[in-house]
Amino acid sequence: MDQGPAAPPRGVFAAALTPLDRALEPDIALFVSHCRWLLERGCDGVVPIGTTGEGNSRSVRQRRALLDAIAGAGIPPNRFIIGTGSCALADAVELTRAAVAAGTAGVLVLPPFYYKEPSEEGLVRFFSELIERVGDARLRLYLYHFPQLSTVPITTGLIKRLLAAYPRTVAGLKDSSGDWSYSAGLLAQFPGFGVFSGSEGFLLANLRAGGMGCISANVNVTAPLARKVFLSWRDAQAERLQKDLDQARQVLDKYPLPAALKHVMAAISGNPGWNHILPPNQPLSDEQGRQLMAALAALPAMGEILRRPG
Amino acid sequence: MDQGPAAPPRGVFAAALTPLDRALEPDIALFVSHCRWLLERGCDGVVPIGTTGEGNSRSVRQRRALLDAIAGAGIPPNRFIIGTGSCALADAVELTRAAVAAGTAGVLVLPPFYYKEPSEEGLVRFFSELIERVGDARLRLYLYHFPQLSTVPITTGLIKRLLAAYPRTVAGLKDSSGDWSYSAGLLAQFPGFGVFSGSEGFLLANLRAGGMGCISANVNVTAPLARKVFLSWRDAQAERLQKDLDQARQVLDKYPLPAALKHVMAAISGNPGWNHILPPNQPLSDEQGRQLMAALAALPAMGEILRRPG
Repeated sequence: MDQGPAAPPRGVFAAALTPLDRALEPDIALFVSHCRWLLERGCDGVVPIGTTGEGNSRSVRQRRALLDAIAGAGIPPNRFIIGTGSCALADAVELTRAAVAAGTAGVLVLPPFYYKEPSEEGLVRFFSELIERVGDARLRLYLYHFPQLSTVPITTGLIKRLLAAYPRTVAGLKDSSGDWSYSAGLLAQFPGFGVFSGSEGFLLANLRAGGMGCISANVNVTAPLARKVFLSWRDAQAERLQKDLDQARQVLDKYPLPAALKHVMAAISGNPGWNHILPPNQPLSDEQGRQLMAALAALPAMGEILRRPG
Repeated sequence: MDQGPAAPPRGVFAAALTPLDRALEPDIALFVSHCRWLLERGCDGVVPIGTTGEGNSRSVRQRRALLDAIAGAGIPPNRFIIGTGSCALADAVELTRAAVAAGTAGVLVLPPFYYKEPSEEGLVRFFSELIERVGDARLRLYLYHFPQLSTVPITTGLIKRLLAAYPRTVAGLKDSSGDWSYSAGLLAQFPGFGVFSGSEGFLLANLRAGGMGCISANVNVTAPLARKVFLSWRDAQAERLQKDLDQARQVLDKYPLPAALKHVMAAISGNPGWNHILPPNQPLSDEQGRQLMAALAALPAMGEILRRPG
């Protein structure tokens, strides 16, 4: 399933967690082994340093250290799409340049999210400055539509203007709005635009509508179930497999992310250090953790997954 | 009016604009002369690199360059409170350390603003980690309550816990909520807590209630009017002077900040470069600029101010 360098990324992508040491610095060795583990478990690719990876909770230096680790990990770099969004244009430029130089498949970029209700013109200028300053024909930019966290939607008007100006560079969008009709509308309005669902709950719908797949937090844990949906989305059993995936999602979505996923990784791997998390996020309480693991263990499809060592 | 190093900051503070060059890098020389100009016009102090100074739109490197310029400007460093907030704990630590080392009067710190609805516990942990990691008895930290932009309020519960843990370090709060009753409640509940109003519209009310004054964007332009209120807040004419200040504020508040203030500085100084602004903010349109300047010029109290060279 290795993708050629020219093939656009497609399939199941994990918005990878970032393990931390006791001092809350990235645990680089565990991060690399986690990325490798995600690919072995059936992810087509990995998207580190985004919302799930606590990207905006860490400095550019720390984000670059993760990127350097990826570049040196011996994993094909085109398996990665890197979260490089920042409120600060200069930071987004630096991180995006580094991601392109590392040969990754693309970058996933939040709009600048501090100032509220920016004008469309102001957002066009932000993304245009970013693209022009990086100035590299290899750049493939995925817009990150996550209004609940960024507060700044990626509107169809903005997409239209950016596609007109940078048709090769602006490669797609991750839709984390939770509103399937938004993805469906984009796929209808912009044929060939690389739309990923931000939730694996829309994986089958996305593929059937001509989308690229999902970039999801939960598949840090449920990649094998998502893999089955991706392999069989044209087949009769696809809906049953999507339902297995959804049942795990419904459990996980009751708990704060990324804390819940870090808790599951700690439980699967036996390494409690997985629970380290940057403030303002907090680890699950012991009670929450017990409830979560019991609810997951009660799902038939999760049995094998939870037994598998990390 | 020079304040001794031990006196807590009080009076009229300008949330200083950051002038930019054509490449959108800080124009350091113009920034330093603007800070000097603000103090000459009657500001008691300057708060650079905050919301008005587009602090979150620039990299840590650029923010540190502004701090280094302040340290080398020959202005008493205790005239400055530095905006050091960031979503990233490591960035807030680096900037806060540098601000303390420069001998500034304090730092103004946003809560981490990417993740939404963080727990009180998570915010206590963020600020505690920041204070402990800086680890300097000279640190004076002002919490920045600006829910409209940060989306994360500084609640009285949070203040209470931080004051209990760090009574000397947690020095006060800037209230940019626009809700005077919040400031009034804090001043009643936490005697001696250094509450600044984020709007000069509450300057007189703040001083009368025992607050420290204001940290305001508009006083980049209207410092002489705010100065008069501060000098005479116990006197009979205070309300008339506050009204003069309010009339200018009501004009400025109709336009997007900081673009409107940059436009006025460009007009006063004759330097159009003042209009450079980092995306997603946009400069005023020519038409907006003409309307703004005409509305300000129509105010009797603004006549002298607008004629004064920058």
